Amino acid sequence: MPERAVPHFQEELQQLKTRLLEMGGLAEDRVRAAVQALVERDTAVVERVLAGDGPINQLHIEIDSRCFKLLALHQPMAVDLRAIVSAVKINTDLERVGDLAINIAEAVQRYMRHSPVKELIDIPRMATIAQRMLRDALDAYVRRDVALAQAVLDEDDELDALKTQVFRELLTFMLQDPATIEPALDLILISRHLERIGDHATNVAEDVIFMVSARDVRHHAREL
Amino acid sequence: MPERAVPHFQEELQQLKTRLLEMGGLAEDRVRAAVQALVERDTAVVERVLAGDGPINQLHIEIDSRCFKLLALHQPMAVDLRAIVSAVKINTDLERVGDLAINIAEAVQRYMRHSPVKELIDIPRMATIAQRMLRDALDAYVRRDVALAQAVLDEDDELDALKTQVFRELLTFMLQDPATIEPALDLILISRHLERIGDHATNVAEDVIFMVSARDVRHHAREL
Repeated sequence: MPERAVPHFQEELQQLKTRLLEMGGLAEDRVRAAVQALVERDTAVVERVLAGDGPINQLHIEIDSRCFKLLALHQPMAVDLRAIVSAVKINTDLERVGDLAINIAEAVQRYMRHSPVKELIDIPRMATIAQRMLRDALDAYVRRDVALAQAVLDEDDELDALKTQVFRELLTFMLQDPATIEPALDLILISRHLERIGDHATNVAEDVIFMVSARDVRHHAREL
Repeated sequence: MPERAVPHFQEELQQLKTRLLEMGGLAEDRVRAAVQALVERDTAVVERVLAGDGPINQLHIEIDSRCFKLLALHQPMAVDLRAIVSAVKINTDLERVGDLAINIAEAVQRYMRHSPVKELIDIPRMATIAQRMLRDALDAYVRRDVALAQAVLDEDDELDALKTQVFRELLTFMLQDPATIEPALDLILISRHLERIGDHATNVAEDVIFMVSARDVRHHAREL
């Protein structure tokens, strides 16, 4: 029998990264589907998003388990240690993004019981930005790319500006026509959920910066 | 000179727990202050909450650093390993609670520009529940108390029910009197922020259950 009870650390770490990318892809798909359902008023897609967070939850457990195994069996140091602890945090962030896709779908379901408030432009834009931020943040993690992580942090401002714009515009509708109050409230909630997805991407980007260059972003990094 | 370059692991772990409790206390105080400012329309208290997240951010960095040191220097196993990785996650949750106190204070600041919508009863109740959940979840972590962690999970339902009640009641106000739309929106946002504080307490409680009895709550625990 070959003597390889403990697989190579770097190989295992690579698999961990692949699984995180997969989970990110699933989370992104669900956000995209929820917002597509909103734009196209597609009940079937809403139902699909509401039903299907099993795969993400399973990956969440698997990735956590991989991280603990890597920590326990290989006792990594320095950047590898930070990479694995970051993976635990990123895993949590991605699971929350999956939950937010469900929250969006719930709001979409309520929204569709009313006439449309307006043509939707900014919310799909917010969704596109949030998805891109998430994808870039995960790419930055896998490639240890601090510049890309920094670009994600910068994009968050754009998302915040759109959220404020959406809020102001919908408030105007609500003040002019009480029939729009309920559906407009759901659009406001959806924009907040998308903003939070951007926040999770920001968390991931911050983890990447800490992982790669601990000294640059944390006061007490020297003590490590 | 005494030969104790590396302090005892259990002593360091105890200090870590003490710091987490301190941070939880700070976060809780800030949430309490923000909601007190809302009830008493106290501008000075709002300003204080908006200005003062420095201590929490400093503790966040310090606790993270302690966790990495414990992992790197002591290479802990099993429940100790899970306790430290949980501390990293709990630290993140507590920092978010601090951020949410700021979000609440921002909404309170906007709210006070308008006449009060109604006497506030449910929102202070939500705040009391969210604070208790946070305190109990941290106590459960320190004492490795699964029963208390489970109690925190149960309390989250109460918080969700209050959030729904607050939403329905405020919607009625908005539909009856457009002058209440703007301030009522801020109250809805405040109730959502409080619900999210409950979610963070729930995360901590789930971490405690995983830490103490990995086998009971995670599919792949055997592989550890």
